[in-house]
Amino acid sequence: MLKCKAAVAWGPGQPLKIEEVEVQDPQAGEVLVRMVATGVCHTDAFTLSGEDPEGIFPAILGHEGAGIVEAVGEGVTSLKPGDHVIPLYTAECGECKFCKSGKTNLCQAVRATQGKGLMPDGTSRFSINGEPIFHYMGCSTFSEYSVVPEISLAKVNEDAAMDKICLLGCGVTTGIGAVLNTAKVEEGATVAVFGLGGIGLSCIQGARIAGAGRIIAIDLNESKFEMAEQFGATDFINPSKFDKPIQEVIVEMTDGGVDYSFECIGNVNVMRAALECCHKGWGESIIIGVAGAGQEISTRPFQLVTGRVWRGSAFGGVKGRTELPGYVEDYMSGKIEIDPFVTHKMKLEDINEAFHLMHEGESIRTVIEFDAK
Amino acid sequence: MLKCKAAVAWGPGQPLKIEEVEVQDPQAGEVLVRMVATGVCHTDAFTLSGEDPEGIFPAILGHEGAGIVEAVGEGVTSLKPGDHVIPLYTAECGECKFCKSGKTNLCQAVRATQGKGLMPDGTSRFSINGEPIFHYMGCSTFSEYSVVPEISLAKVNEDAAMDKICLLGCGVTTGIGAVLNTAKVEEGATVAVFGLGGIGLSCIQGARIAGAGRIIAIDLNESKFEMAEQFGATDFINPSKFDKPIQEVIVEMTDGGVDYSFECIGNVNVMRAALECCHKGWGESIIIGVAGAGQEISTRPFQLVTGRVWRGSAFGGVKGRTELPGYVEDYMSGKIEIDPFVTHKMKLEDINEAFHLMHEGESIRTVIEFDAK
Repeated sequence: MLKCKAAVAWGPGQPLKIEEVEVQDPQAGEVLVRMVATGVCHTDAFTLSGEDPEGIFPAILGHEGAGIVEAVGEGVTSLKPGDHVIPLYTAECGECKFCKSGKTNLCQAVRATQGKGLMPDGTSRFSINGEPIFHYMGCSTFSEYSVVPEISLAKVNEDAAMDKICLLGCGVTTGIGAVLNTAKVEEGATVAVFGLGGIGLSCIQGARIAGAGRIIAIDLNESKFEMAEQFGATDFINPSKFDKPIQEVIVEMTDGGVDYSFECIGNVNVMRAALECCHKGWGESIIIGVAGAGQEISTRPFQLVTGRVWRGSAFGGVKGRTELPGYVEDYMSGKIEIDPFVTHKMKLEDINEAFHLMHEGESIRTVIEFDAK
Repeated sequence: MLKCKAAVAWGPGQPLKIEEVEVQDPQAGEVLVRMVATGVCHTDAFTLSGEDPEGIFPAILGHEGAGIVEAVGEGVTSLKPGDHVIPLYTAECGECKFCKSGKTNLCQAVRATQGKGLMPDGTSRFSINGEPIFHYMGCSTFSEYSVVPEISLAKVNEDAAMDKICLLGCGVTTGIGAVLNTAKVEEGATVAVFGLGGIGLSCIQGARIAGAGRIIAIDLNESKFEMAEQFGATDFINPSKFDKPIQEVIVEMTDGGVDYSFECIGNVNVMRAALECCHKGWGESIIIGVAGAGQEISTRPFQLVTGRVWRGSAFGGVKGRTELPGYVEDYMSGKIEIDPFVTHKMKLEDINEAFHLMHEGESIRTVIEFDAK
């Protein structure tokens, strides 16, 4: 067991509190990771708000990190101390029905316990004065040290900057993957992206990588447009400037609708608009945002019968252990840009400020850097 | 101009009335077809009921026919008198954005006027005492003669039995095509089909042709199960026999859900069940049924984010002029069965009885045979 600093979420709506937590040794199939950097993502804020039906407290949030293997538990063969890793909230066991299907990245090997804030054996490795603190999304990156299942760690190039590639643990990969893996956007396609946070901007980047001919960026906050343009957006829409449904505006400006649309907000009304702005006959809309508990999407079935397709994407359809190392290489070669996403950097002690900046729309991503050991 | 018998729909909810109608000569790009046989489909009944928002009266309904070219208008080059044809409610011009996309069968060349019950020049070829009677779905097969655009006619093998292949004009093709073209069901897949009318049974047949491993047939009317089994269904469910949502029943009996589901009723609640009975990670649900005006589908977006896909299919994704001749050949070679669908045959004079049998669930398809000339 070791002791370290962590930002603890004691309850919904409360600020995180920096605490000294006890971290147990990794058990069989588990790995102790010393965190080097972590992003602060909207999903952390969503859970902290209390709206996440799976949210459990007290917990150590954070799921967009990068770190170094400190120690491995019994039976761990694919990782050794010193390896650079990105924790995965979507594991890849390679053996479950889902992994073997070849059709999805949604490995279910540790899903049940992960959803309960526990390790696969049904217990937690975190505690304060002996009282358990829950894990979060199998990652808990808001801690100097975390214990993560071996199958939930992608081993990546040691030369890659940890304060950047941590964002491949969620936002950047989710957006780019949704475009390249889930939608499979083709060269010349017309794409609409709703919501210009980290995921939306990553969708725009993905669309540019795919060679999309027209990339329409949509947000109520026009200060986001500059960065959207930097990532490749060609058209910019502020829905509040129109007095008709935004799907109609988009259908008109694209001569019938877009080939692909991406919802990166988590608003069910926007999800509908995203579907309905798609072109009759072939337009596909991909839901990435996470809606509040109990909320539902709806549309007339005629929208689908006339050829539109409604999909979703989680972690960009990316199989973490297999594919994430390649994303890191693509970052190093310059194919994937991450640096502009990191608008702010701070220490763990200031993490509540990172949430504040995100809520105010002033940051794309704040990256928390842990003290070098 | 000629005069002939036709079943006229004078208004919503009224029985059809056999009338002598005037049929004008085919204009440029149009073809006069002598109808030999026509099916009576639920969509005809849907329009006749008044629920179809596009329904216009008075009109000559019917869209599932087969006939022989009697005369062609100016500029018609692909058809000549004597050719055997199936009228298409989804044209295939080969030149519009939709035809050229390679992604859809929803040719829009004559869509606007067809939706208004008119020929492409904005007028009708049918009248009674000089008063225009509207066309229906560009086909109007409940008439001894009909005028149809050249691009809305598939030329088919003259040796094929017209009283059977008429059903390839809608139901049989819609169901088989939804499985083979839209869903692309693979060998060994598990499939659920909701609603065992002509389209649902055709989905079952399509799933058998695709080599599906398990085909679950769902209907409140258990008398449909025998024919479903004949077409290849392996499991049979009457939802009224369970006191929990049918999607839960299906998820349990399939260890997580089906690979593909098909809604062949037009009920938005069943559409939801069809989506939610799909397997997490990859299950796809295809809406074929047409819901009433203003009705909406809904579900939690989480259903899509966790990998399910919601699609629709119209005329089975089949491009009529290109692909329907092959369906006729497949019927002749025995690959596609049509004969069991024809549970009743009658003359045009008895067409209201055909609607009655359909409403009572006593027929799969009644085929109307016109008097030989």
